[in-house]
Amino acid sequence: MTDPVRTISRFAWRDGMFTPGERMVPEEMAISLVYDGGSHAVMMGSPVDLEDFAYGFSLTEGIIASLDDVTEFERVDYEEGVELRMWLKGDRGAALAARRRMLAGPTGCGLCGIDSLTEAVRKPQPVAGDLKLSPADIETALASLAPAQILNQQTRAVHAAAFWTKADGLVALREDVGRHNALDKLAGALARRSIAPAPQGLPGIVVLTSRISVEMVQKSAAMGASIVVAVSAPTALAIRTAEEAGITLVGIARSDGFEIFTHPHRIVPEKLAHVA
Amino acid sequence: MTDPVRTISRFAWRDGMFTPGERMVPEEMAISLVYDGGSHAVMMGSPVDLEDFAYGFSLTEGIIASLDDVTEFERVDYEEGVELRMWLKGDRGAALAARRRMLAGPTGCGLCGIDSLTEAVRKPQPVAGDLKLSPADIETALASLAPAQILNQQTRAVHAAAFWTKADGLVALREDVGRHNALDKLAGALARRSIAPAPQGLPGIVVLTSRISVEMVQKSAAMGASIVVAVSAPTALAIRTAEEAGITLVGIARSDGFEIFTHPHRIVPEKLAHVA
Repeated sequence: MTDPVRTISRFAWRDGMFTPGERMVPEEMAISLVYDGGSHAVMMGSPVDLEDFAYGFSLTEGIIASLDDVTEFERVDYEEGVELRMWLKGDRGAALAARRRMLAGPTGCGLCGIDSLTEAVRKPQPVAGDLKLSPADIETALASLAPAQILNQQTRAVHAAAFWTKADGLVALREDVGRHNALDKLAGALARRSIAPAPQGLPGIVVLTSRISVEMVQKSAAMGASIVVAVSAPTALAIRTAEEAGITLVGIARSDGFEIFTHPHRIVPEKLAHVA
Repeated sequence: MTDPVRTISRFAWRDGMFTPGERMVPEEMAISLVYDGGSHAVMMGSPVDLEDFAYGFSLTEGIIASLDDVTEFERVDYEEGVELRMWLKGDRGAALAARRRMLAGPTGCGLCGIDSLTEAVRKPQPVAGDLKLSPADIETALASLAPAQILNQQTRAVHAAAFWTKADGLVALREDVGRHNALDKLAGALARRSIAPAPQGLPGIVVLTSRISVEMVQKSAAMGASIVVAVSAPTALAIRTAEEAGITLVGIARSDGFEIFTHPHRIVPEKLAHVA
């Protein structure tokens, strides 16, 4: 096992002086996702919660539809990194192999197996869910993250993705140096706890410490999240994709407020909720 | 051409009120890199400086050694995104095709054509260069970025990579929603202006607004940068890689100081420089 945080020596330049000292920094490791013996993608990430990552990546990238599609999971550690090996159910394995063959040959590789522009900007399935929250709920959800961000408390350099419900508060939080990885780990963690089969939609919200690129929206849609809240700003493509997927996208979420970019009907002030 | 910044409508929740209004957000687009007719990778990025990106990515990923290795460049716009098509000199094309064949078949795709763990954590060539700077130079270089970050001034959500020299100040700056893309665009911009063929090392420093992952160090090393300065923190693997590559890695660079993680001998206080 690799420690996710390292203490390193460095010089600090402050107030006209070089001072030797130490800082805690996040570890980063090559993680290979291997299906049926074939390497699919190599990601750089934090060496924690890797089984969550393997299942979550497989789910949000549509390689599997449920955990049952993975018949065996194995983790193999090397000096250079770690291999997460999964064996797929017959039909899932055949589907991936077919997709693989289509990509092989002259057209080579691609982004995590996504070779064409069309597939990169794929439209997610619209999410379901009549979840409604108040602005105070959003603020409570946001405030719940910091105490659980163990790696970030030590390093101030790690992203988090969390799941929060009004009934239970912070249900799960996962961290990674990469924001996509943090979200994939969260997706895996929820699936492994049997939370939210996609058709019914997630019974809570996904909270992200990062900016929102289109891939974050695509992955959230694959998880069935109808409300996604992020500390930073979305891209224009992320907004268009959330609009089409029926996701309420909340960004610039800080202690002094937030902004709603799509489907604002799910965020209802307490007072109006009582009136309605 | 796609506008790199979009003005969108949104609701802001602040001081107990929902207020409709507008915000400028960065556009994001699928960008496919195509060599000799075969798609190599699809990245999501900002639709500006794409020719710089094509050449820079090709250089920092070792697909070409110099601009001369690309015999033809073509940009093709689709509704779904943009294709950057390059045709390679015979031997470069053959080398890429051989690497492609090795990756094809059962082992499928990978990270930008990097399939194995070993290749993902590849050791860069050590950088050359007897460049030395003072802490004041670092602060001057840092302060030079903001006025040139056009997209970030509008959106506060875009990364920058810049090249600064003591003689000329800010020489080039490139922006992108992705930090790797910003650095690749910078690499391409410098190469197209014939700055710094790798053997001699870059005559200035690379300044990044982002965190430093190992890929940022690998790409900087490929550019021949002996000093890399970033606003945020490095990962432990990035530090080890910079150590081995002979790169002076400066992080947490803010208006009140900075920290040096590797090869500190290149940063020399003015006073000591006079004494020495």
